[in-house]
Amino acid sequence: MGLPPDELVQRLFAGERRALAKAITLVESMRPDHREQAESLLQAALPRTGNAIRVGISGVPGVGKSTFIEGLGLWLIARGHRLAVLAVDPSSSISGGSILGDKTRMEALSQHTEAFIRPSPAGKTLGGVAANTREALLLCEAAGFDVVIVETVGVGQSETAVAGMTDFFCLLQLPNAGDDLQALKKGVVELADAIVINKVDIDPGAASLAEAQIRSALGLLKRLHEEWVPPVLKISARKHEGVEAFWNTVLAQREALKETGAFEAKRRAQAVDWMWALIENGLKARFHANPAVREALASTSDAVARGALAPGIAAAQLLRRIE
Amino acid sequence: MGLPPDELVQRLFAGERRALAKAITLVESMRPDHREQAESLLQAALPRTGNAIRVGISGVPGVGKSTFIEGLGLWLIARGHRLAVLAVDPSSSISGGSILGDKTRMEALSQHTEAFIRPSPAGKTLGGVAANTREALLLCEAAGFDVVIVETVGVGQSETAVAGMTDFFCLLQLPNAGDDLQALKKGVVELADAIVINKVDIDPGAASLAEAQIRSALGLLKRLHEEWVPPVLKISARKHEGVEAFWNTVLAQREALKETGAFEAKRRAQAVDWMWALIENGLKARFHANPAVREALASTSDAVARGALAPGIAAAQLLRRIE
Repeated sequence: MGLPPDELVQRLFAGERRALAKAITLVESMRPDHREQAESLLQAALPRTGNAIRVGISGVPGVGKSTFIEGLGLWLIARGHRLAVLAVDPSSSISGGSILGDKTRMEALSQHTEAFIRPSPAGKTLGGVAANTREALLLCEAAGFDVVIVETVGVGQSETAVAGMTDFFCLLQLPNAGDDLQALKKGVVELADAIVINKVDIDPGAASLAEAQIRSALGLLKRLHEEWVPPVLKISARKHEGVEAFWNTVLAQREALKETGAFEAKRRAQAVDWMWALIENGLKARFHANPAVREALASTSDAVARGALAPGIAAAQLLRRIE
Repeated sequence: MGLPPDELVQRLFAGERRALAKAITLVESMRPDHREQAESLLQAALPRTGNAIRVGISGVPGVGKSTFIEGLGLWLIARGHRLAVLAVDPSSSISGGSILGDKTRMEALSQHTEAFIRPSPAGKTLGGVAANTREALLLCEAAGFDVVIVETVGVGQSETAVAGMTDFFCLLQLPNAGDDLQALKKGVVELADAIVINKVDIDPGAASLAEAQIRSALGLLKRLHEEWVPPVLKISARKHEGVEAFWNTVLAQREALKETGAFEAKRRAQAVDWMWALIENGLKARFHANPAVREALASTSDAVARGALAPGIAAAQLLRRIE
């Protein structure tokens, strides 16, 4: 990777953006020798991690995520923060190109020395979710970025993964009410620490109606933390309205969770859950790669689908092949 | 198990309830020699399965599941159906006793020769969910029961598992409105083909308000099948009101899904998903049982929780131990 690991670590700790970019490329590499270097780099970085405010943001394309993040980022930098933005793009492995990697996005923010923006292409592992994003997040923290935003367009399991690596996860919605209100995705609402309605300036009436509808729906769902009632916020990213209210919400949730110890418990559980997700992923990958399994998998799976083989028998037969 | 397998199969196909009970005990057994017998029994039964209407019912204790199922069961038997009730009880492995196994439950129904009632104690596998319930369901079908109800109190992952083995999954709710409306559990609402408000005779006004609130919440969530809009039904199981409307809803969903092929696709996907759930479960069980993993797991997991070891490194280290 060019740099000897020790120098890379020193430059990473000094907060150099180029070193951070190289370090992330290293942890994203699939080469076995890179993986070893990546592990020692991560282990060296670990004591300097954990101090950032980790915010997850999801929303459909067109909801205004970039405009919102850019406005929030500039506002935070003006207040002395250093901001890293990691964009998990589950579509990149399908389309071959990253819709989030577009260099013209967040142009004002990307020119700032206190900002670091990086698309995180989805690996083939973990169901299309960038397995390396969490490690990239740790490296951003080691490089002294005290706010890390992880952004996703919310395809497949990416929202669950992003919510599982951030302290505060929010869902951006368009200000449509009634039948036009875009459906809240299966399981995603329950992950949200806040629902943010963007572009309220377009139709304030519809936005207020949508706000009431979402608030009512949220009231019927179990809460993530008993310490925190997810609020519905109305903003206009384009007009720079609502940024401060949003940030105060992030800080308020943090304080509420820290008061009861829920914050630390959440961080611990996230780390252990992540380890297990990677282990399960590794076990499945080995299973699929096993020649004896590969030989029988398609026909067995087909027999189960046709109803010719009971699922329990099929599973037992396939598992016997790796004994 | 007393009976030679061939005789058991014949008596099972003849619809004998005692043979069905023995067959289910056999598939629940953990003894390796029983497991082999169970597999050959299941494979013999398979051609006679798939013909029942599979209904999943969930709800908190006290919501009136037994009263509802008993009323529905007697109504169905009067119309020529044969009904099996399998109760998945995730609490039984914790408390040591099954709250659903109570023989005094559904007394009128249990005395009927056209009914078969069986608690399905949660195994330790599949996260507290009865892994054998699906096989018991197949055996009920082979014994000629044309309606199988799978009931759960909805602890942990049991609702996902029950929804994954039934054609129609519904959630029973109490008729409380507003703040008293019990929270709809994370992810469960999206699994439901109908929400059924029971005990509406207690407070018809509150029930109607709850109905409107739930309907509004459902409207904001993505649908399971585009062919089917989950309705909100109001019933009084105690007064035998709403049973026919409920059953007509089950049949209407079935027809709607069959028209587009979604029904068959759902059944196929459920079987393959179940196979994979069992495979993943088996892979995890082997991982946990591996001596080299056992040696390191507690300390590794603890180091990850403390933030002393990155989750990715921990996972890689543990996976290396089973190579």
